[in-house]
Amino acid sequence: MRGEYIAGVDIGGTKIIVSVADATGIRARVYQHTQLSGDNLTIPKQVYYLIQKTAEYAGIHYEDIQSVGISTCSPFEKKGIYKEIVAPNLCGGLTGSTRLPNSWHSIPLEEFFCQLYPDVIVENDCVAAVVAEKLFGAGKLYDNLVYVTWSTGIGAGAYVDGKLIRGKNGNAPHFGHIYIAEDGPQCGCGNYGDLEAIASGTAIARDYGVPSAKEVFDSYRAGDTRAKEIIHRAARNFARGLASLNALFDTEYIVLGGSVMNDSDILLPLVKEEFYISFPVLSRDVIIAKSILFEYIADISALALVMPVSWIETWRTYTPWEKAPDLIKL
Amino acid sequence: MRGEYIAGVDIGGTKIIVSVADATGIRARVYQHTQLSGDNLTIPKQVYYLIQKTAEYAGIHYEDIQSVGISTCSPFEKKGIYKEIVAPNLCGGLTGSTRLPNSWHSIPLEEFFCQLYPDVIVENDCVAAVVAEKLFGAGKLYDNLVYVTWSTGIGAGAYVDGKLIRGKNGNAPHFGHIYIAEDGPQCGCGNYGDLEAIASGTAIARDYGVPSAKEVFDSYRAGDTRAKEIIHRAARNFARGLASLNALFDTEYIVLGGSVMNDSDILLPLVKEEFYISFPVLSRDVIIAKSILFEYIADISALALVMPVSWIETWRTYTPWEKAPDLIKL
Repeated sequence: MRGEYIAGVDIGGTKIIVSVADATGIRARVYQHTQLSGDNLTIPKQVYYLIQKTAEYAGIHYEDIQSVGISTCSPFEKKGIYKEIVAPNLCGGLTGSTRLPNSWHSIPLEEFFCQLYPDVIVENDCVAAVVAEKLFGAGKLYDNLVYVTWSTGIGAGAYVDGKLIRGKNGNAPHFGHIYIAEDGPQCGCGNYGDLEAIASGTAIARDYGVPSAKEVFDSYRAGDTRAKEIIHRAARNFARGLASLNALFDTEYIVLGGSVMNDSDILLPLVKEEFYISFPVLSRDVIIAKSILFEYIADISALALVMPVSWIETWRTYTPWEKAPDLIKL
Repeated sequence: MRGEYIAGVDIGGTKIIVSVADATGIRARVYQHTQLSGDNLTIPKQVYYLIQKTAEYAGIHYEDIQSVGISTCSPFEKKGIYKEIVAPNLCGGLTGSTRLPNSWHSIPLEEFFCQLYPDVIVENDCVAAVVAEKLFGAGKLYDNLVYVTWSTGIGAGAYVDGKLIRGKNGNAPHFGHIYIAEDGPQCGCGNYGDLEAIASGTAIARDYGVPSAKEVFDSYRAGDTRAKEIIHRAARNFARGLASLNALFDTEYIVLGGSVMNDSDILLPLVKEEFYISFPVLSRDVIIAKSILFEYIADISALALVMPVSWIETWRTYTPWEKAPDLIKL
């Protein structure tokens, strides 16, 4: 039985956000930069501290929180019954990169929290997002639903035949790492020519020679030909990636989120044009749309993982994520 | 409740095979060339006729068959509750191709048989194959299992988290139609640069300029350099396709079948080498192996779809598919 208060945790490579909610809405939200030095329990301990601080700001005792939903960058690897995080952007020991100030090979996050709370769910951030989309987004009516983030990286979460799919280590579907070209630039994961290396926001910025994709879109809007070429190629390959995903999942609805989708006015027509020319019998009935939860998705994904069923109608009716308190920096 | 006899039907572009089985084994098998002229009930009627003839050869009355499993080339499209076949290699009206002597847009196979039998299951041939692999092959112990056929075409069937996945029209996972190159030859489905267009047996033969892949492997064994290049490229791309599939499904076991796998001594080492260099955290624990049911898979796939649970232990113990009666041509 889930209790009166729940916590949602969003772990990224640069920051960690924690929210505490009750049946009527989000009571407090805090964030802190992700701590990447120390032993491999640094992040679990940081998260536990942040949950306690958020409870304080929410005006409740931290022991009144019994359910914790954690949405995190991944992949995972199962050690016994627990998923450990083996993400190259957190664990320096995986790649030997000197970019990270640690030599972690994995982070035993799930086991740590299962010893502290009776109700813990840990999922990849896009898997958590598709749960939120299914509960509160346009995907409510669909048994076959995919959420895709198009951001500095590319990822996805999916329902197939009404079930959230996870795979053996909880890594399904790691959409950014499907191959899209026979050769191509190297991805952070080691692959050459995968979707993330070719069509992510990072790839768009790299191809144009600027720090972020935003500047490439600015140049595009100013009429720059090279920006246009780069964005068209990225959109075409992203759409071909979606067609591959659809060939494997036979889905109904693809919801798009992520920072690159801030320029959806440019991208959506390009993506749709390319997507619907792929194998028509498979592609023709698929809906592709920008997430209606777009700017709020990160705030409710982790909470959605552990939300009591009895809250859902109220949340659908009053959309409290739109009235969440300001983020407090710790 | 499934009865004493079941029928299995395998519908391909060139022939239809029907088997009738009881609790101890296969009693009769017949085949006939697929009839492609007439109205769009031609194939359903032909199959019904073949079931009656097979029952005769099996020495039973055809009305004693209550369960029919149908394994067929696809894709499907749902009309109401029934799947119709919308396969470009059967339905001339889909592509306007003059290669086929009909103008069918779809074949209402499932509805036709559901009016005749109380227990009918229709699946794509690779989906049926993965059911057989899960019951009788090396995949018994795995909740995350994929069967892939590498033949004139390329297809797959998959269990994810212990569930056979189907998707909205029963087309998951249409593995041959994921994109693998930014450009490339055109596939029969219309796509440019998908896996089937680049790495199927048909593609290998086309690239070498001969009627079948078999001849390219013969040349490879004779030391021909161009045959070697073509086969190495196909194997590399096939392996990259498997890595993409694994990124989306996070699977445990990939079972390979299909006519191209007759040359598995050449192909498996090439495929494994390429597969395991993709994103190591995702690929390293996946088993890739040739099907132990290899030459029998088509004989038991359709039967597996409707096999009574009470038969399974006997079939596992006595492997009656290895002692099936000869195919009778009608």
